[in-house]
Amino acid sequence: PAGAALPAATAGAALNYGVSWYPEQRGPETWDADLRLIRAAGFTFVRVGEFAWARMEPREGAYDFAWLDAAIAAARAHGLDIVIGTPTAAPPVWLTQKYPEVLGVDAAGKPLRHGARRHASVASLLYRDKARGIATRLAERYGRAPRILGFQVDNEYGRETFDPAAVRAWHAWLAAKYKTIDALNKAWFTVAWSQTYSDWAQVPVPDERDNPGLALDWLRFFSEAWRDYQQVQIDAIRPHLAPGRFITHNYTGRYDNFDFGLTAQPLDLVSWDWYFGEPVVDPADAGFLHDMYRGFLDRNVWVMETAAGNTNWAERNYTEPKGELRAKAWQAVGHGADGYAFWVWRPTLNGIEQFHGALTDAGGRPAPVYAEAAQVGRELAGVGEAVRGSVPVADVALLHDYPSRWALRRMTMTRDYDAWKVFTSWYGALKPVATGIAVLRGPDRLARYKLVVAPALHVMTAADAAALSAYVRGGGHLVLGPRSGVKDESGSLWEPGQPGPLAALIGAHVDQANIPPPGALALDGPAGPAAASIWAERLAIDAPDVEVRLRYVGGDGWLDGLPGVVSRKVGKGRVTYIGALLDTPSLRREIGAAATAAQVVPQFPGLPDGVEATTREGPRGRVHVLVNWGTTPVTIGLPRAYRDLLAGGTTDRLTLPRFGVAVLGER
Amino acid sequence: PAGAALPAATAGAALNYGVSWYPEQRGPETWDADLRLIRAAGFTFVRVGEFAWARMEPREGAYDFAWLDAAIAAARAHGLDIVIGTPTAAPPVWLTQKYPEVLGVDAAGKPLRHGARRHASVASLLYRDKARGIATRLAERYGRAPRILGFQVDNEYGRETFDPAAVRAWHAWLAAKYKTIDALNKAWFTVAWSQTYSDWAQVPVPDERDNPGLALDWLRFFSEAWRDYQQVQIDAIRPHLAPGRFITHNYTGRYDNFDFGLTAQPLDLVSWDWYFGEPVVDPADAGFLHDMYRGFLDRNVWVMETAAGNTNWAERNYTEPKGELRAKAWQAVGHGADGYAFWVWRPTLNGIEQFHGALTDAGGRPAPVYAEAAQVGRELAGVGEAVRGSVPVADVALLHDYPSRWALRRMTMTRDYDAWKVFTSWYGALKPVATGIAVLRGPDRLARYKLVVAPALHVMTAADAAALSAYVRGGGHLVLGPRSGVKDESGSLWEPGQPGPLAALIGAHVDQANIPPPGALALDGPAGPAAASIWAERLAIDAPDVEVRLRYVGGDGWLDGLPGVVSRKVGKGRVTYIGALLDTPSLRREIGAAATAAQVVPQFPGLPDGVEATTREGPRGRVHVLVNWGTTPVTIGLPRAYRDLLAGGTTDRLTLPRFGVAVLGER
Amino acid sequence: PAGAALPAATAGAALNYGVSWYPEQRGPETWDADLRLIRAAGFTFVRVGEFAWARMEPREGAYDFAWLDAAIAAARAHGLDIVIGTPTAAPPVWLTQKYPEVLGVDAAGKPLRHGARRHASVASLLYRDKARGIATRLAERYGRAPRILGFQVDNEYGRETFDPAAVRAWHAWLAAKYKTIDALNKAWFTVAWSQTYSDWAQVPVPDERDNPGLALDWLRFFSEAWRDYQQVQIDAIRPHLAPGRFITHNYTGRYDNFDFGLTAQPLDLVSWDWYFGEPVVDPADAGFLHDMYRGFLDRNVWVMETAAGNTNWAERNYTEPKGELRAKAWQAVGHGADGYAFWVWRPTLNGIEQFHGALTDAGGRPAPVYAEAAQVGRELAGVGEAVRGSVPVADVALLHDYPSRWALRRMTMTRDYDAWKVFTSWYGALKPVATGIAVLRGPDRLARYKLVVAPALHVMTAADAAALSAYVRGGGHLVLGPRSGVKDESGSLWEPGQPGPLAALIGAHVDQANIPPPGALALDGPAGPAAASIWAERLAIDAPDVEVRLRYVGGDGWLDGLPGVVSRKVGKGRVTYIGALLDTPSLRREIGAAATAAQVVPQFPGLPDGVEATTREGPRGRVHVLVNWGTTPVTIGLPRAYRDLLAGGTTDRLTLPRFGVAVLGER
Ligand SMILES: [Zn+2]
Ligand SMILES: [Zn+2]
Ligand SMILES: [Zn+2]
Repeated sequence: PAGAALPAATAGAALNYGVSWYPEQRGPETWDADLRLIRAAGFTFVRVGEFAWARMEPREGAYDFAWLDAAIAAARAHGLDIVIGTPTAAPPVWLTQKYPEVLGVDAAGKPLRHGARRHASVASLLYRDKARGIATRLAERYGRAPRILGFQVDNEYGRETFDPAAVRAWHAWLAAKYKTIDALNKAWFTVAWSQTYSDWAQVPVPDERDNPGLALDWLRFFSEAWRDYQQVQIDAIRPHLAPGRFITHNYTGRYDNFDFGLTAQPLDLVSWDWYFGEPVVDPADAGFLHDMYRGFLDRNVWVMETAAGNTNWAERNYTEPKGELRAKAWQAVGHGADGYAFWVWRPTLNGIEQFHGALTDAGGRPAPVYAEAAQVGRELAGVGEAVRGSVPVADVALLHDYPSRWALRRMTMTRDYDAWKVFTSWYGALKPVATGIAVLRGPDRLARYKLVVAPALHVMTAADAAALSAYVRGGGHLVLGPRSGVKDESGSLWEPGQPGPLAALIGAHVDQANIPPPGALALDGPAGPAAASIWAERLAIDAPDVEVRLRYVGGDGWLDGLPGVVSRKVGKGRVTYIGALLDTPSLRREIGAAATAAQVVPQFPGLPDGVEATTREGPRGRVHVLVNWGTTPVTIGLPRAYRDLLAGGTTDRLTLPRFGVAVLGER
Repeated sequence: PAGAALPAATAGAALNYGVSWYPEQRGPETWDADLRLIRAAGFTFVRVGEFAWARMEPREGAYDFAWLDAAIAAARAHGLDIVIGTPTAAPPVWLTQKYPEVLGVDAAGKPLRHGARRHASVASLLYRDKARGIATRLAERYGRAPRILGFQVDNEYGRETFDPAAVRAWHAWLAAKYKTIDALNKAWFTVAWSQTYSDWAQVPVPDERDNPGLALDWLRFFSEAWRDYQQVQIDAIRPHLAPGRFITHNYTGRYDNFDFGLTAQPLDLVSWDWYFGEPVVDPADAGFLHDMYRGFLDRNVWVMETAAGNTNWAERNYTEPKGELRAKAWQAVGHGADGYAFWVWRPTLNGIEQFHGALTDAGGRPAPVYAEAAQVGRELAGVGEAVRGSVPVADVALLHDYPSRWALRRMTMTRDYDAWKVFTSWYGALKPVATGIAVLRGPDRLARYKLVVAPALHVMTAADAAALSAYVRGGGHLVLGPRSGVKDESGSLWEPGQPGPLAALIGAHVDQANIPPPGALALDGPAGPAAASIWAERLAIDAPDVEVRLRYVGGDGWLDGLPGVVSRKVGKGRVTYIGALLDTPSLRREIGAAATAAQVVPQFPGLPDGVEATTREGPRGRVHVLVNWGTTPVTIGLPRAYRDLLAGGTTDRLTLPRFGVAVLGER
Repeated sequence: PAGAALPAATAGAALNYGVSWYPEQRGPETWDADLRLIRAAGFTFVRVGEFAWARMEPREGAYDFAWLDAAIAAARAHGLDIVIGTPTAAPPVWLTQKYPEVLGVDAAGKPLRHGARRHASVASLLYRDKARGIATRLAERYGRAPRILGFQVDNEYGRETFDPAAVRAWHAWLAAKYKTIDALNKAWFTVAWSQTYSDWAQVPVPDERDNPGLALDWLRFFSEAWRDYQQVQIDAIRPHLAPGRFITHNYTGRYDNFDFGLTAQPLDLVSWDWYFGEPVVDPADAGFLHDMYRGFLDRNVWVMETAAGNTNWAERNYTEPKGELRAKAWQAVGHGADGYAFWVWRPTLNGIEQFHGALTDAGGRPAPVYAEAAQVGRELAGVGEAVRGSVPVADVALLHDYPSRWALRRMTMTRDYDAWKVFTSWYGALKPVATGIAVLRGPDRLARYKLVVAPALHVMTAADAAALSAYVRGGGHLVLGPRSGVKDESGSLWEPGQPGPLAALIGAHVDQANIPPPGALALDGPAGPAAASIWAERLAIDAPDVEVRLRYVGGDGWLDGLPGVVSRKVGKGRVTYIGALLDTPSLRREIGAAATAAQVVPQFPGLPDGVEATTREGPRGRVHVLVNWGTTPVTIGLPRAYRDLLAGGTTDRLTLPRFGVAVLGER
C-alpha cells in the first residue's frame, strides 16, 4: 500500500484517544475527579499547556511550572499520556505591553491588541525570539519526561498581519525571489495600468483590487513566514525531545490563507482541528480534509481537536446529532488517523468559547456526549491492535494545490463558483469507485496511482505539466476539470490560452470559457445525456485522435454542438478533460468511466448511496471501516465473510442504521 | 391596584397631549397659525428647546433666550402647556471646535465630528460641565415660569464612544468595582487564553471577540456614565424647578445599549419615544415596551414622541395605516400613559429627518393625519377626568433585565434566537390570560403578583435566585423560560450547570441545550401535543415530586422521550420551567395553565384574537380600553353593562372594526 | 430633425469601429499579426496610450515615445485610424512616491496608494500640473500627426476623495457659492440640530448621516472638480490639435457620483463605456443611456468601450449570448453612435482585468466573438455612407437631472424605490409610442418636442418650474412622475409642499406620500383599472378643471377613492401628473394616452413587444434600425417598402430571430 507508517518509535496507544484539558483553569482539587472520568471514557491522553503562557511566565523571565508538573504527574498517575502545547498563540499581557512592536496590524492598518488571542505578528523576529524562549523551557522540562507523546507547536496558525515587520519581510522576500525589480514587473505584468515598480519598497501589501500575481506571491511569502515562525520552535524543542516523540501542529479545517502543506514538511506528525458549522457532516468534505492532511507528509495523521457536540462560532451552532460523534471518529480512523481528540473537557467558564461543546457541564458532571465518547473509547481500544502500524489503502489520487485555490477564490468570475465545493464534489464522485484516495500537493508521486484526478489545476507550472504528461504517457489515467491550465506560476495567463502547457497532451484547447445563464445546460454523447451549470468551456479539437465524450446541446448559441468533455489515449495512458461543471450524476459517470478504463476497482463495489468504506493495511492485514452517512438504515451483502471487530464474530452481511459503523478484519 | 400615582402636584391635563414644536426653525410670523392649529386639535402642550443650543448660546457664554421667551409666551397665550427640552444632544459648532476633547470616538477609533448630533462623549467631564451651564440657564429662566410642566433632559441617550475620557473612566470604574486586578481576572476567568491582566490600564474597551464578562461590565459602566451625565443636569435644574413639575428623559424604543432602568431612577417621570419600522404595529411588542417603561419607576409614563404617520430611518418607512395612530394613543393610555405626543409638528425643511411624518406639510397646512390626531385630542379630553390619578391594574408580572438581554444578544449561539422576540412572544402569550402585566427590572416587588413569568433570566445572581425561591415558597407561581440561570453576575457559567442557583427550586437541571436542525420539534404530554424550534433544553429530573408537563418526541436521538417542560409545587407556590422555545399555541397553553393554577383571571376573559384589553383604576373607579388590532371587525359580548366613554351611553356589546377602540367606565 | 451633427471636419469613417489596443503590453513582434487581424475584422481605428504613463515617462521628465511612434506607424500602415488616450488615470509610481500629497483619501480617511489605478486626487493642483505635462507632450507629438482622430482625456472619471486638497477646495467652493455663511446655513436649514456653522472651514465632507443640502452641494462641487481637472488637459491639447479632430472622454455607464453632463460641455465628442453585469442587456436601460449621453451635447456620440463578450467585475460575469454583441452595435448606431469600440483586443496577461472579454485569446488567436465582431465590421462598412452626417430623430423628450437622482438615491424612504429603474421604466414605456427620445439635462430645449416626460424631477428650481409651465402653456404636453417638485435647489422641502412651484400648473398638490404595504395597490378610472406599488401619492385637487384619470381603490384607508393620476389642459398644452409608481401596463397606457393627446406617432406603430426601432435622418434621408430583443422570432409587416441595407434589395416584411437586426433605408 501507499504511504509510510508513523516514525517507528512513536510511543502511545495504537489509536490514541484524547481530550484538551486545561488544569490551570480550575483548582487542583478538581483534577482527580476530572482525570478519573477521562480515563474511564477510554481516553489515553490529554493535551495541556496550550494558551497557558501567562501562568508559565507570569512576569518576563519569571517561570512557574510547578502547577504544570503537578498536573502532568496527576495525569500520568491516572494512566494517561500527555501532549504538550506551546502557548505562543496567546502572549501574556506583559509581553505585548512591553514590546508593542510584536503586535500584528489588520487590513485597515489598526494594530491588534491584547484581549483575545493570535494578536502577535508571525513576522516579528522579536516575537519569534520570545516564542523560542518559552518553547525551550517547556522542551527542557518535559521533552524527556515520562509519558510525553510529543509537542504541539502553537495553535491553529492563521490571521494575516500587515505590521511593519511583515512588510519589511515581504519586500525582502520579493527581492530574494525575483533578484531584479524588472523580473517582478514582468512576472506580474505590471505594464498594465502603469503599475511598474522601480523599487521593492514600493510594492504594497495586497488589497482586493490588487494584481493577482502580487496576491499569489503574498500568500507564498506568508506561508513561508509561518514556516519560519514554526521552525524557531522546532529548533528549540528538537534537541530536548526523546526519540520517537513527535512535533506537530494542529491545522484548522478548511482555512486556506497560507500553504499548510509547506509548513507541514518539517513536522513529524500532521494533526488538524475538525470543526464544522452545518447541521450534519458532509462525508465527502470531511473525507477530502482527512486525505488532504494525510497527503502533506504521506503519513497517518491525528485529529487533535473536534467539537464535543457543538461549536460556538457558527451562525447556527447546531447540536451534533446523536451517533455522529462516533461515526466521525471511525471515519477518521478509516482515513488514517492514529489519534483523535476532543475539545474540550470542561467548558471554559467565561470567554467567547464558553458555550463550546464539552464533555462535562460547568461543574464537571458528564454531559450526554460523554457516554457516546466512552463508547468510542471502548471500541478504539478493542480494535487498536488490529490496525497498529497500518495505513490507508489509496489506489487513486486527487491533485490539489493552494495557489490554484487561492487564485480561484480571489477571481471566481461568478459567485456561483465555489472552489472548495468543486474539490469536495470531485472527491465525492471519485470515492465510490476507488478503495481510497491520496490527496497530493503536486505531481511528484503520481506513478503510484492508476488514476489521478485534478479538479482544478488553475495555476500550473511547465514542470507540473511535464510531470502530468509523463505520467499519462507512462500508462497513467488522468482526468482534468474545468479551469485547468489557465495561469502560470505568477498568475499570468498562459499563452496562447487555456489549458496552457497541457494543450499538447490533451489535443484540444479551450477557445471560450462560458458563464451560462442560470439553470442547467444540457450535454449529450455516446454514453447518454448529461447536465452542467455555472461554468462551461467550449473545446476546440487540435488532434485527430481526440474522442468527444460529451457535446453541449443548446447554450446561447456559443456552445451548441461543440465538445465539452474530451478524452484521448496518449502513449500507454489516457487523459480526459472535463470542461464543464457537471452535475453529480454526470460527474460520477465520467469519473466512473475513467476508473473503469484505468481498471480501478473499489474494495466494496456497489455500496448503497451514503455508505462510505475505507481500508487500512498493515502488519496484521487489512481492516475496513464502513459508515452509513445516509438518513435511513441499509443492509449490505459483503463479498466474503469478515471478522466483525466491533460486534465480534464473523459476518457476510451488515445492517447499518444512520451513523452506523462496522469495522471488518480480513483475518 | 399595583403602582404608584404620579407626583400629586404634577400640573397639566389629566391626559396630556402634545407635539414637538421648533419655534426656532421658522419665523415668529408662523407661530400664531401653528399654535392655533395645535390647540384646535386638542393638544394641551408643546415641547420646545430640544436641539436649539446654537440659538440659545450662539457664542460661548453669550445667551439669547428672547426668541424662546416669545415662543413660550405665544404657546401660553394659546392655552398650551410647555415641556422644555435641554439641547445637549446637539452641541453648537463653537463648542466642539474650541474643545475637541469632548468629541466621542467610534469603534474604529475615529473621532466623531460636528454635522449630525450626539457627537459629544457622555464621559467627558468638560462636556458635562458645558451641559450643566446651558441646563442651569434654562432652569433659572423657565423652572418657575407659568405653564411649564417640566424639563426633558437631553434627547434619546445612546451612542457608544471610546474616547480617551471614556477609557479613563472605564478603568476607574473597574478599579472601584473590583478593588484588585485579581478579582477582575477571577470574575472574567481571564486564565483562559492568557488574558490575565496585571493593571487596570491594560483592559481594553470591548470588541466582538472579547470576553463576555468584560462586555457585560462595559455596558454596566456605560449605563452609569449616562446616569452620571444625566445627574449633572438634574442637579442643575432641580433647585430652580417649581414643585409638582417633572424632570424626565425620552428613551428610545427598543434600544438597549445601556440600562435604561438604572438611569430612570432619579427621574420624576419616565417618557419614551415610540417609533416603529414595520408596516403595522405589533401590539405585544408595543405593550411590552409600555409596561417596561412603566416598570422602571412603577409609575405612569408619557410617550414623548411618536411618529405622525411615518418614520424616515427604516429600510422601508411604511405609512401608518389609517386608524392606527388613534389605536396606538389609546393603547398607550390603557397601559398607563398620562402624556402622549407626536414628533413633529412641521417637517424639518432640510436635514436627514426632512421626510419624517409631521402633522402639517412643509408650509404648515394640516396633513391628513391631523384630522385623526384631532379626533384623539377630542377623545382624550372627554375621557381625561375619568382616568385622572388612575394607574393600570397589573395582576401578573414579567421579569426583564438588561444584563440577560445583553448577554443573549451577544452570544445567541444561533441567529434564529432573537432575545427581543422571546420577550415579546411571552408577553403576547401572557396578556390574554391576565388583566395587566407589570414588567419588573428585578425580583423585588414579586409578592404583589400571583403569577410571575421570566422568559430568559440568563444572567442570574444568587440573590435573585433566593428572591425567586422565597416568592414561590411563599405562594407565588413562577414560570421560567429557556436559557435561564446560565450565567452569574460576571457572565461566567454557573457551576455545576444550568439553571445554576435555581436548580434546587425547580428540582431539575438542564443537561444538554440543543440547537435542533431547522424545522419544528414535537413534544407531547398529559395536556396534549406541542411544538418547539430553535432552542430545546433536555431536562434531568433531580427531585421525585417534579411533574413532567411535556416530553420531546424525536429530535435526533438526544431528546426523544426526555422532559422539556416541568412543573413543581414548592411550599405554597409552584414553579414551572419551560426549556424549549415553544410555538405560540403551545406557549399560550403552558402560560394559561400556570395562570389557572395561580387563579389569575383576566378582566375580560375570552376576548377574540387580536383584541387587547387594558384596565386602569383610580379615584373614579376602573376604566377599560379595548383595541381591535386584528384586520377584521369583531363583536364582543361584555360580561356586564359599561359606560361607553367615547360613544356615550351604556353598552354590554361592542363592535370594533380594525383599529377600533372602546373606552369603558364602570360607573 | 432635432440635434446637431458632429463637427463637420471630423475625420474618420462614417461609422468608426475600433478596439482598445495596448502595444506597450506585448513586444513589437506581435504588432503586425495583431493589426492584420484587427483590420480584417473591419475595424477602422485603435485606441492607444491610455494607462501607459510609466512607459511614456519612466522617470520624472524623461520621456520615451519611440515605442508609441512605432506602434502608431504600424497601425497607420494597416490602414487604421488612431485615438490617443491620455494616461492620467494611472500615474507612474515615481510620481506618487515623490509627491504623496497627490494621493486621494478614502471615506475612512485612509490615503489611497499605488497598485491599482485612479488613486490620485482630482482636486490636487499638483496632480493636475503633472497631468498637463504628459498631455502636452502627447498633443505636441500626435495632435497633427496623420490618421489621429482625436484625444480621449483620462479614463472613466470617478472615485471620490477626501484628501486635504479636496477639502480646501470644497470650502473655497462653498464660500464662492454662498458668499456668507449665513446663506449656507439658511440653504441647508442648519438651524435643525444646532448644526449652524460660523466658518467655512467647519463644514465637513459628507457622510451618510449628513445634511442632504450638504450632500447635494458636495456632488456639485465634485462635478466641478472633475470639470476643472479635465479642463487642464483640454487646454494642454487644444493648441496642438489639427482642425476636425476631437477631444473626448469615455464616461462610465450608469455611474453617477458626479454630473457627467456638466463635464461634457467643453468636449467635442461625448463617448461612453457600455458595460453590463446581467445575463442579457435590458434594451430600455441601454436606450436610456445612449440617449442620455447623446443629450449632453445634443450631438452624436461614440461608444468608446464595450465588452468583447464578458466583463470581469460583476458578481456573475455571464457570457454575452451569441448575437447580442451585434445587436448592441446596431442599437448604438440607431441611437446616434458614430463610433463603436471594444475593450479589449488581447487579454491583459495579469492584473485584475485578466479575465475580461477580449477579441483574442492570450496568445492572439481570434476568440469566438471575433467572427461576430467581424460581421458587424462588414455591415457597418456597408451601411456607413447611408448614415453619414445623420442624427437620430427624436420627437419626444425625457427630463433627467443628476441632483434629483442624487437626492432620491440618498433618501429613498424605502429600499424598494430604485431611482435608476424609475427612469428606465419610463423610458421603456415611452419608446414604443414615439420615434425617438431626447434625454435632456434641463428644460431649455423643450419647445422642440410635442411631448415631454419627467419621471422624477425631485429637485426643482423655480426657474425649471417656470420653463415647464411656459412649455405647457405654449402647447406642450408634459407628463410628470411621482416625487416631483419635492425639493428646491438646496435640497430643502418646497413650501407649502409637493409639487412646490408646479402646483399652480398642475392644479393639484400632494397631501400625503404613501409607502403602502407590500403588494399591489389598485386604481381605477375612466380608462379602466390600473395597479401601482412602492410609492403612492394622494392628490388634492386645487383647480376645478383638473381631470382625474385614476383614483385609488383601497389602500389602508388613506387613499381609497382619492386621485392618484390627474391631467389638466393648460393654455394650449396639457400637463399630467402621475403620483404612483404604476406597473408596466398601467404606465404604458398613461404615457400612451399622453402621446395620443400630443399627436405623437411613432415611425413604426404597433411593433411586437421586444422589437425596438430607431430612426436616423441625414443628408441621405432616413435610415431605420430594428432590433428584436425578444427571445422568440417575430415577423413584422412594414408600412411600405424599404431598402434592406444589410440583406440588399427591398422589402415590406421582416422576420427577425432573437437579436435579429434590420437596417432599412427610405431611398
Ligand atoms: Zn482550538
Ligand atoms: Zn427624537
Ligand atoms: Zn475601461
